[in-house]
Amino acid sequence: MSLLDHALSNIKKIAPYQPGKPITEVARELGLPVESIIKLASNENPLGMSPKARAAIQDAIDGLARYPDDFELKAALAKHNGVDANQIVLGNGSNDVLELIAQVFLAPGRSAVFSAHAFAVYPLATMGVGGECIAAAAKDFAHDLPAMRAAVRDDTRIVWIANPNNPTGTFLPYDELKAFIASLPRDVIVVLDEAYNEYLAPAHRVDTTEWLKEFDHLVITRTFSKIYGMAGLRIGYALASAAVADLMNRVRQPFNCNNLALAGAIAALEDAEFLAQSFELNQAGMQQINAGLDALGLKYLPSHANFATFHVADAAGVNQRLLKQGVIVRPLAGYAMHDWLRVTIGTQAENARFLEALATAIK
Amino acid sequence: MSLLDHALSNIKKIAPYQPGKPITEVARELGLPVESIIKLASNENPLGMSPKARAAIQDAIDGLARYPDDFELKAALAKHNGVDANQIVLGNGSNDVLELIAQVFLAPGRSAVFSAHAFAVYPLATMGVGGECIAAAAKDFAHDLPAMRAAVRDDTRIVWIANPNNPTGTFLPYDELKAFIASLPRDVIVVLDEAYNEYLAPAHRVDTTEWLKEFDHLVITRTFSKIYGMAGLRIGYALASAAVADLMNRVRQPFNCNNLALAGAIAALEDAEFLAQSFELNQAGMQQINAGLDALGLKYLPSHANFATFHVADAAGVNQRLLKQGVIVRPLAGYAMHDWLRVTIGTQAENARFLEALATAIK
Repeated sequence: MSLLDHALSNIKKIAPYQPGKPITEVARELGLPVESIIKLASNENPLGMSPKARAAIQDAIDGLARYPDDFELKAALAKHNGVDANQIVLGNGSNDVLELIAQVFLAPGRSAVFSAHAFAVYPLATMGVGGECIAAAAKDFAHDLPAMRAAVRDDTRIVWIANPNNPTGTFLPYDELKAFIASLPRDVIVVLDEAYNEYLAPAHRVDTTEWLKEFDHLVITRTFSKIYGMAGLRIGYALASAAVADLMNRVRQPFNCNNLALAGAIAALEDAEFLAQSFELNQAGMQQINAGLDALGLKYLPSHANFATFHVADAAGVNQRLLKQGVIVRPLAGYAMHDWLRVTIGTQAENARFLEALATAIK
Repeated sequence: MSLLDHALSNIKKIAPYQPGKPITEVARELGLPVESIIKLASNENPLGMSPKARAAIQDAIDGLARYPDDFELKAALAKHNGVDANQIVLGNGSNDVLELIAQVFLAPGRSAVFSAHAFAVYPLATMGVGGECIAAAAKDFAHDLPAMRAAVRDDTRIVWIANPNNPTGTFLPYDELKAFIASLPRDVIVVLDEAYNEYLAPAHRVDTTEWLKEFDHLVITRTFSKIYGMAGLRIGYALASAAVADLMNRVRQPFNCNNLALAGAIAALEDAEFLAQSFELNQAGMQQINAGLDALGLKYLPSHANFATFHVADAAGVNQRLLKQGVIVRPLAGYAMHDWLRVTIGTQAENARFLEALATAIK
């Protein structure tokens, strides 16, 4: 056999993740000046990050020759979430902890269930360790919990759920979600991905960390990449039972989180003001974008996150015409949503520029 | 079955990596002031990092809300190493690329060969994906290539080799190493881990990237954590055939390297002066440490890296007595070297303080 014949077959089947196009890439490809481009493709915080986090990062630069020490962030997260430090698994972004949980519980002959139109990393993490993907049909592009429950087989070890969901922005009421978790066999892990959780309106919020006391089969994941504005630093975490966290930590790379991310995250947790500002900007921006889409006569999904997912007749063409105007949004063909585009809520000026460019692009 | 019964058996067998003790941990445990402690436990660069890298990191802080874009570092590394960009796999430290190669080629029913007293991540990466570990006997604590060749079985898919080796500092002459690679079946990957490569004396250096033209089964890994002084930033890479790099990139987390690491690494590659300073400090420090160990009548291994591995009668006791004096070195019991300690070459003052503390500790 040749060398490549020995590569695991599940790896060969994987198509790499398609990220939102970076500004510099669009500049190179279309010959546009970098300053003329706005990126609304990756659900990043248009306000950047907390000034307190920035200061903490600044202070930590001198220590970069040292390997990371995650003791303090784990202590801060334990306090913040009301859990023990041994229930926390830090990740190089929440992508990392999603892979760790897959590595502990999935393998060839085991399956994972997720909803159609779910985050691309769920199938990637599943396939990366040879697990089988089961995509349950969605209902109006949102999670259909009865369909997901019915999709769970004897060999199913993980159910992946994002709430709010990416790329649709849809939200599962917490009472339904809790009933779903309770309905599952206790030897099936539910990964509840709360990357966009902080964008929920106060009326919708529930402290899901309380559920960890009741459900050993629950793993909650969070990130500093979204409302905390630290996507480029790579830091996220999982909350789980101590036993599950211990297993995940055994396969975690010992220095998976960099020093500056650790320092920045501690400071970011303490900046409630920045979070409030970011939340309000997003609420206002969502109204602005929805009103603009209404005015253009375009259908969009009800979003509880920091993006809007809207319907256009020729998504690939519209995307190209937006790019040519220096506006980067996210095509969703890879999510089996061929006629849809996803736009991140930006600043007021960015939203206005997007709507203007879109009006031209759909003409 | 219970939830935990379903965790993969290979994961349950893993004991997590034991890192060098962080300064703050020793301060907490022994009640010592942080300023009074020196850490010579993790082969970090005592000069810190290049001022050019520091400036580049500083400039990149404003972009941290954006997901990373690794285009420019890959272009810089391609140029630096004389390879195509599609032969490069970036890692969150070289630990990350070691795991990626294991994930592509190892699984239950497959084995990996490494030398006794090899880097702890080789067995961790192997066991993390269910592979079997085959530790070939070492010769005077160094790689015994005939023994390693004999250990390769039909189901062996990876041979892990660090040159210079950690934690022993031993060096394999390149002609012997090249003959070994040529002697292997071409469907067995050799991972040549060159984390300490830049500490080699000029007379010992060989441009191993040239070998990639000849050997499709060779993967070379490098890091910015050692002589580049950026351990806390987490950045490393692998060089391989385009086909193997493609497979590794399919399982690579799409944003595995943070923005500041990407920016810092580009600048660090261009700072030959800092590398030369670091190299010279290490050469002088190695002489200082070796002379000090000679004076204390202690045996040590011939080291070609930035650390010295020395023999003491009661390593655990000596380690404790060093810690109480605020000097952190690395016990090697986990490497089946119970009577040995490893000390990183520090600044002249740190080396002197270590030798003084050691004289007390072995009394």
